Amino acid sequence: MLPTIDWEDGEVVMVDQRKLPSREVYVRCRTAQAVAKAIRTMVIRGAPAIGVAAAMGVALELRRSTTTGTTQLATEFYRACDLLAATRPTAVNLFWALERMKRVFSAAMRAGQSADELKTTIGVEAARVHDEDVASCRALGRHGAEVVPNDGRVLTHCNAGALATGGYGSALGVVRAAVEAGKHVAVYADETRPFLQGARLTAWELVRDGIETTVITDGMAGALMQAGRVDIVVVGADRIAANGDVANKIGTYTVAVLAREHNVPFYVAAPVSTIDLSTPDGAGIPIEERDAKEITHIGSSQLTPDGALVWNPAFDVTPSRFVAGIITEHGICRPPFTESLKDVCSQEAGGRRQEECESNHAAGHRDVL
Amino acid sequence: MLPTIDWEDGEVVMVDQRKLPSREVYVRCRTAQAVAKAIRTMVIRGAPAIGVAAAMGVALELRRSTTTGTTQLATEFYRACDLLAATRPTAVNLFWALERMKRVFSAAMRAGQSADELKTTIGVEAARVHDEDVASCRALGRHGAEVVPNDGRVLTHCNAGALATGGYGSALGVVRAAVEAGKHVAVYADETRPFLQGARLTAWELVRDGIETTVITDGMAGALMQAGRVDIVVVGADRIAANGDVANKIGTYTVAVLAREHNVPFYVAAPVSTIDLSTPDGAGIPIEERDAKEITHIGSSQLTPDGALVWNPAFDVTPSRFVAGIITEHGICRPPFTESLKDVCSQEAGGRRQEECESNHAAGHRDVL
Repeated sequence: MLPTIDWEDGEVVMVDQRKLPSREVYVRCRTAQAVAKAIRTMVIRGAPAIGVAAAMGVALELRRSTTTGTTQLATEFYRACDLLAATRPTAVNLFWALERMKRVFSAAMRAGQSADELKTTIGVEAARVHDEDVASCRALGRHGAEVVPNDGRVLTHCNAGALATGGYGSALGVVRAAVEAGKHVAVYADETRPFLQGARLTAWELVRDGIETTVITDGMAGALMQAGRVDIVVVGADRIAANGDVANKIGTYTVAVLAREHNVPFYVAAPVSTIDLSTPDGAGIPIEERDAKEITHIGSSQLTPDGALVWNPAFDVTPSRFVAGIITEHGICRPPFTESLKDVCSQEAGGRRQEECESNHAAGHRDVL
Repeated sequence: MLPTIDWEDGEVVMVDQRKLPSREVYVRCRTAQAVAKAIRTMVIRGAPAIGVAAAMGVALELRRSTTTGTTQLATEFYRACDLLAATRPTAVNLFWALERMKRVFSAAMRAGQSADELKTTIGVEAARVHDEDVASCRALGRHGAEVVPNDGRVLTHCNAGALATGGYGSALGVVRAAVEAGKHVAVYADETRPFLQGARLTAWELVRDGIETTVITDGMAGALMQAGRVDIVVVGADRIAANGDVANKIGTYTVAVLAREHNVPFYVAAPVSTIDLSTPDGAGIPIEERDAKEITHIGSSQLTPDGALVWNPAFDVTPSRFVAGIITEHGICRPPFTESLKDVCSQEAGGRRQEECESNHAAGHRDVL
């Protein structure tokens, strides 16, 4: 499995995704604050991966705490949650993971756990978040593999791969599962400016796996489809609203419009933790704007002249009418998404998952102790 | 006027467009071969500009020739034409300019000019090509300005500016003329990977002119239009087929599809020298594929991992059905383009211009002496 994020000697270790593919450098985090910084500066990115990182960040903070009183520990716990919730606004998995940790912490407090027990409980829950994310990606990959034709040419945008998740990947999980099922698949990767997740990360992890990967610039997607060279589009998601509108990396909407123009099915692959039933539609999804320098510079070289303005939204919203299906670990949701997304959120026994979907919005909200 | 290309001390001097905006470096050419290399390596680019460069390259070659015999001079002349014609295949202005030089040379030969007179004739004709290109851009700018609304937000792709022409610009000529007519105009410039003509060149020349310019990555065009922030798209062209299909910088077709989806009018601005009536439609336009390194590297830094494939077509073709109008120096051509393009090519007195439009294809063809 790829080294996206893991524990090592009581520290959280991540491969620095800003430096791939030219250098494989690891960042070691000793505090929740360090994990928060890693998320904010995109050492680690990808909606499911930052959810996992947030859960591990909270666990890390408790693990290093010397506090023995549960009230003081709770203060530290919620402070860590707030710190991590403030890193990036769009990907809902971050808030989903933190809400899940809060629910578990709150229940454990009510059950009268000691500080040491609470630390263990939270550590175990963070490991579960990580393990379940990998399992979800493997499961959604198997579902998604069914819609990938043999000899299929898959266009993807950004990196929704092992590096964007706990491992295996969502959109690239679909590709991997199709290959594991014996299909021949070739991938076209949009380079995905400004951060170049496609050129740097998607290409890196697929080439490692021996999957044929062709990098194109983002503007080439139209000409590629016009030439009849794309059979299916599969992308990830940072947040899926209740009506099926999908926030994903900037440029995704452009790909969706092109796909419809060329009758290429456009699929979104994401674990259920990405679905936010509390946000009715895409208009309610906050879109992060990032530093202009991501566009004006590459490394130390300045691309644009002084005086030029820049617009740098990190995500866009693809209306659900462009989406053929949303591939989850419980199956592929089809239109009308208002129904199918609610169904998929209810599929977990006892409706726990639906409750999670609905509480994904509650970023920063503290459970009543 | 911007220093795209000019004579200096008997040499052809161009600003090195690969180094803008960070450095303003000039390349001096002493031979047609040096001009050919400058075109091939994109020291100078933009369809009208490379037409001008080709004409000047031929004149340069004759100017430096010590030959006194006209037959020997003709050999040198046609060799220079062949050399320049072999540089880049898509932009028809290159072939248009060379055919024009050949016609003039052939007529002067038939008229019994001496070697010295032929050198002068060709030198004068090259200057005319340059001057007429600037005049054409100013004229098409005035026509185009009429379709740019006041407070209009113009999206453009690549650089169809002063740097892409003899000066003033085609798409950016429209913007400049609208500003000169007293309108307030703001420009969004697609950065235009891989060569970044938008980020580097369009932004540089518009900022110099004090025109508000916002650079976006190519993938952002969809989100920008979705947000209702684009009133009109104006791009240049490298070759326009008889039916109105437009070859232009890769990514243009993607913009055209997005424009139609959002009901934003999509205009092409180009001098008549860009129209190739001998090519019936876009399928007949040769599309140059360039070195993978343009995508895999920026400067000395490698973006993609070893083992990743690359597709790097330099142009794409936008079918005429996406085009609201083609802005030329003789007015705006509207659909059906098969009629309007033929008309505009006939507007020059005596039909000389139509003959030029029709002979644009005759690259490498030698007039009968």
